[in-house]
Amino acid sequence: MPFENDREGLIEGRNAVLEALRAGRPIDKLYIVNQNADRSLSRLAALAREAGTVVVPCDRRKLDTLSATGAHQGVIALGAVREYCSPDDILALAESRNEDPFVIVCDEITDPHNLGAILRTAECVGAHGVILPKRRSAGLTAIVDKTSAGAAEHMLVARVPNLPTALKNLRERGLWIFGTDANAKSALWDTDLRGPVCLVIGSEGDGMGRLVRENCDVLVSIPMYGKISSLNASAASAVVMYEVLRQRCHHV
Amino acid sequence: MPFENDREGLIEGRNAVLEALRAGRPIDKLYIVNQNADRSLSRLAALAREAGTVVVPCDRRKLDTLSATGAHQGVIALGAVREYCSPDDILALAESRNEDPFVIVCDEITDPHNLGAILRTAECVGAHGVILPKRRSAGLTAIVDKTSAGAAEHMLVARVPNLPTALKNLRERGLWIFGTDANAKSALWDTDLRGPVCLVIGSEGDGMGRLVRENCDVLVSIPMYGKISSLNASAASAVVMYEVLRQRCHHV
Repeated sequence: MPFENDREGLIEGRNAVLEALRAGRPIDKLYIVNQNADRSLSRLAALAREAGTVVVPCDRRKLDTLSATGAHQGVIALGAVREYCSPDDILALAESRNEDPFVIVCDEITDPHNLGAILRTAECVGAHGVILPKRRSAGLTAIVDKTSAGAAEHMLVARVPNLPTALKNLRERGLWIFGTDANAKSALWDTDLRGPVCLVIGSEGDGMGRLVRENCDVLVSIPMYGKISSLNASAASAVVMYEVLRQRCHHV
Repeated sequence: MPFENDREGLIEGRNAVLEALRAGRPIDKLYIVNQNADRSLSRLAALAREAGTVVVPCDRRKLDTLSATGAHQGVIALGAVREYCSPDDILALAESRNEDPFVIVCDEITDPHNLGAILRTAECVGAHGVILPKRRSAGLTAIVDKTSAGAAEHMLVARVPNLPTALKNLRERGLWIFGTDANAKSALWDTDLRGPVCLVIGSEGDGMGRLVRENCDVLVSIPMYGKISSLNASAASAVVMYEVLRQRCHHV
């Protein structure tokens, strides 16, 4: 239940949500009770969709669980702590620094602690930005910001409606797309990770989605010598990001 | 407050704790109320110390916070999910596999989630065991076991009363002791990490303790290219452990 960790940054109740939407405050998600006959809620949902927010219909019990105040009136918005940028902004940053782009894509990382840890490591290796899908992903909430030790405030983070399309666009801009897969034949260390690079981090439970995997240029495996043979998402991403950095520093 | 995450594995109340001690059940820590005049509690504390358990005197409020049942009667034991081994057992395992010892030492990792993640990565790189200090460290509790994704059940884990002494002993057995330090001059990648190796992982807040640091043969730094310049303990340890593994696989 990732959203249970997300209580900070909640905006609850019809007026509070309406004002936040009108003020253009960045909102990750709008949880709204299934109640077709309610005009004021339908209007909120329409306003949110116009602003590009993901609207999640749910039952009253889910809202009660989410609510910190108990007075949600059928609607709770999950505020983002920062504005999102676009993938183009990330590539522009790399260009302005005269560096090969180093982009991290998170495929369905729903646990805000994992996302925070990945942002923190991405900042440490000097990556130019992180791309998240709009759906089925943690957003830039307060708990992510906290777990990231402030990295969420330094890093460019983009949200895209469709990851496979975003990967295609990155490939057209000259990036190589690398994903990790336990069954891949190329070991991480035997793979040339230099040049403009995009690393896809899969979700802890299921790895990458099929369409995302099909949009990777190269699948690499992280060598495993134990019995359990899987790292958690933040450890795995740290190992891969640091191998990119090592190779960039000409230690091949 | 690491122990708040540690509720599973609690043994509460005088009789329950007494029986656990008599049965020789592995116990990480005994929290006991400051109450000198209470003979039955003093006897429990003495029994626990004899069995090598760390006894932590505390006030009643702390016990109330820890308690899951609300009926602690002034004493709560934190049960370990597994027996600990000794550092010699870890070295014997390496010898039996005809491998150079690869030992991880955790200096005051108090967060059970961090310890679990470190155990998980240690298992994945094929390390032979993990050494913890008896005091100021998370132990092998249920939450560590869960976070480790089962690694806590496969790995040899030793607990020692004194880390500097343990490091001296490992050095006498031919291991090189490596610690990480943000200010160290040798970058991780420029350091030869092959051969019998012991990696010291410092606590997230304070790094290694002074005496532990003085017992390292080599301090290495993990290169940082961002603004926040620190990884979390589990990401940092994953990066270092995987660099050892990479070098062991002759990719130097």
